[in-house]
Amino acid sequence: MDIKKDHINFAVGPVQISEEISRIGADPVPYFRTPDFSALMKENEALLKEFMDAPEDARAVFLTGSGTASMDAVTQNVFTKDDRLLVVAGGSFGHRFCEICEVYGIPHTAIELRQGHALTPADLAPYAGQGYTGFLVNMHETSTGVLYDMDMISAFCRENGLVLVVDAISAFLADDVSMKRWGADVVFTGSQKALAVPPGISMMVLSSRAVERIYANRPACYYLDLKAALKNGERGQTPFTSAVGILIQINARLNQIKRDGFANVQAQIRAIAKDFRSRIGKYPFHIVSDSLSYAVTPLSPNNPEVSAHQLFLTLKDEYGIIICPNGGELADKVFRVGHIGHLTVEDNDALFRAFDDLMARGILKA
Amino acid sequence: MDIKKDHINFAVGPVQISEEISRIGADPVPYFRTPDFSALMKENEALLKEFMDAPEDARAVFLTGSGTASMDAVTQNVFTKDDRLLVVAGGSFGHRFCEICEVYGIPHTAIELRQGHALTPADLAPYAGQGYTGFLVNMHETSTGVLYDMDMISAFCRENGLVLVVDAISAFLADDVSMKRWGADVVFTGSQKALAVPPGISMMVLSSRAVERIYANRPACYYLDLKAALKNGERGQTPFTSAVGILIQINARLNQIKRDGFANVQAQIRAIAKDFRSRIGKYPFHIVSDSLSYAVTPLSPNNPEVSAHQLFLTLKDEYGIIICPNGGELADKVFRVGHIGHLTVEDNDALFRAFDDLMARGILKA
Repeated sequence: MDIKKDHINFAVGPVQISEEISRIGADPVPYFRTPDFSALMKENEALLKEFMDAPEDARAVFLTGSGTASMDAVTQNVFTKDDRLLVVAGGSFGHRFCEICEVYGIPHTAIELRQGHALTPADLAPYAGQGYTGFLVNMHETSTGVLYDMDMISAFCRENGLVLVVDAISAFLADDVSMKRWGADVVFTGSQKALAVPPGISMMVLSSRAVERIYANRPACYYLDLKAALKNGERGQTPFTSAVGILIQINARLNQIKRDGFANVQAQIRAIAKDFRSRIGKYPFHIVSDSLSYAVTPLSPNNPEVSAHQLFLTLKDEYGIIICPNGGELADKVFRVGHIGHLTVEDNDALFRAFDDLMARGILKA
Repeated sequence: MDIKKDHINFAVGPVQISEEISRIGADPVPYFRTPDFSALMKENEALLKEFMDAPEDARAVFLTGSGTASMDAVTQNVFTKDDRLLVVAGGSFGHRFCEICEVYGIPHTAIELRQGHALTPADLAPYAGQGYTGFLVNMHETSTGVLYDMDMISAFCRENGLVLVVDAISAFLADDVSMKRWGADVVFTGSQKALAVPPGISMMVLSSRAVERIYANRPACYYLDLKAALKNGERGQTPFTSAVGILIQINARLNQIKRDGFANVQAQIRAIAKDFRSRIGKYPFHIVSDSLSYAVTPLSPNNPEVSAHQLFLTLKDEYGIIICPNGGELADKVFRVGHIGHLTVEDNDALFRAFDDLMARGILKA
């Protein structure tokens, strides 16, 4: 099977991986029920907590699974049928949180937002003092490229005593994340986003309040039982055989971020996003989010005859460039350009050259 | 963090990986919502079905998760509270099936076996004609190294109209697996066993009867919903972001097995097991299974002063050799030597030289 290896990858995940981290993928995968591997996992926990700006008594858990495994595990382990949750439903990931609540019969209200629009105080106001107990939000709704105001959400949750769960899958490292400042109970991300490690692991940090809720709860699912993960994690282990190779790459990457400086790594992502946004104005696209994350720029062709999905196919097949298509009803209207992963401003140059060429060919038009 | 890379690895998983497959782990991970990746996944499905000797109308599903994710997903998706299951409980994996049934409230009876002992017709006889609807078995109970007689189990299931679920996680490729001959409804394995790919993916083949049951059922868990996996699989996709890199390695390995010949790959595993077993007799161990799989040999030191777990630590730290320790109450009594993965008879030589040296040092004694 022929899978192209030399594409420039602007997808929102799996993202482009550095040579240093990729190389580790070819190393032998060690047997993991050993003190060496336990020490590595304890270091992973400490560094993830540090980068999430978590309280000292928080815990980290690494699940072998997609980011959705964390969305699912958190919802079913932290909450019960006695809770009442608010869910920000601004795109397909917000709606996924609603679907998860439905599977577990957890009462919830979806705060529906128009596509591309940020959450406002007016959206939250009707739900103050209404007996809600928890709040689920994809801080960056990756499907539409809308970043929510976490300080506003945090203040609302504090005022109303809500347990705050933050899906930071595509926001972590690109945007500001602070469990302490927000008083957040759960924040999670995935290996294949800005961490720029292959997909297969999703990881969360849990406040002591979230840990207490988990220990008092009876999870719906055996595999995603966070009690077992927390208990095994005390000795740096996982209940079942994990994606050990990816956990070793995560360790290398977390240490790389520590060495290079968290702020510098974040600044680099932001520089690439700013460069892209400073240059996209002269092309016949418009940005379809009124609140951008540094992780991604969502764009729509100005000319309705230009299909976003066809643009994705043409760039992939004729220019060796991957942009991120959208699914469902947005497929022909919206595509996304990611700024996370091992990218450089020179990669932006290549994408703009391709846009220029598509303009010259009349495939892209005003 | 220092993880040793040069050990000879006789663990039952993650196992030793060939250079050809390891190397792919360093390749860029491609964006996967593409026709190329869909074609790769369709090929994975076809080859896995072929090697499981599955009927034409069977389907394969690849989950991002541990082998336990498949045990869990199959149990909750194929069965309901209206079923009555028989579970062969001969070790920790059999007991795990029971725990999974308990989480989902699926009525079940555990057939408890003494450690190291095979299932006999007398063990099954009391359950004939008693209204059971399904049968769960780890065909090789990896924790104790006991292989069950699948032809006997298959005949019992046919006679009693039971849906047959076979965990072949550590047996696949080492022992004979035939969905057609057994009339099995589900057979599953993991990437890190005899397939010798890094851990992170577990994969199952489902009969048309199992698929029908899944579509008629309401799974307990969102992430492990096999309906979503089957639907997305029709176009060669997965519902969520998979461990794409590992799926590409699985593709390379399945093609390697096809090229080298399934029977030859199986014969090589068996040759290594036979070589080991022909030479272990002169050392002060006894084999603690009365029905061996070709995947592993479970051993106990004859002298109660010799701790199996200490032997594991000494071989790891002083000889660079990993054998597979046991957990729980077997920790000091039993260890296992695996024969799956990229091993050779020369690797056996190295292990026997280490045993000789341990004898000479008086650490291993009769």
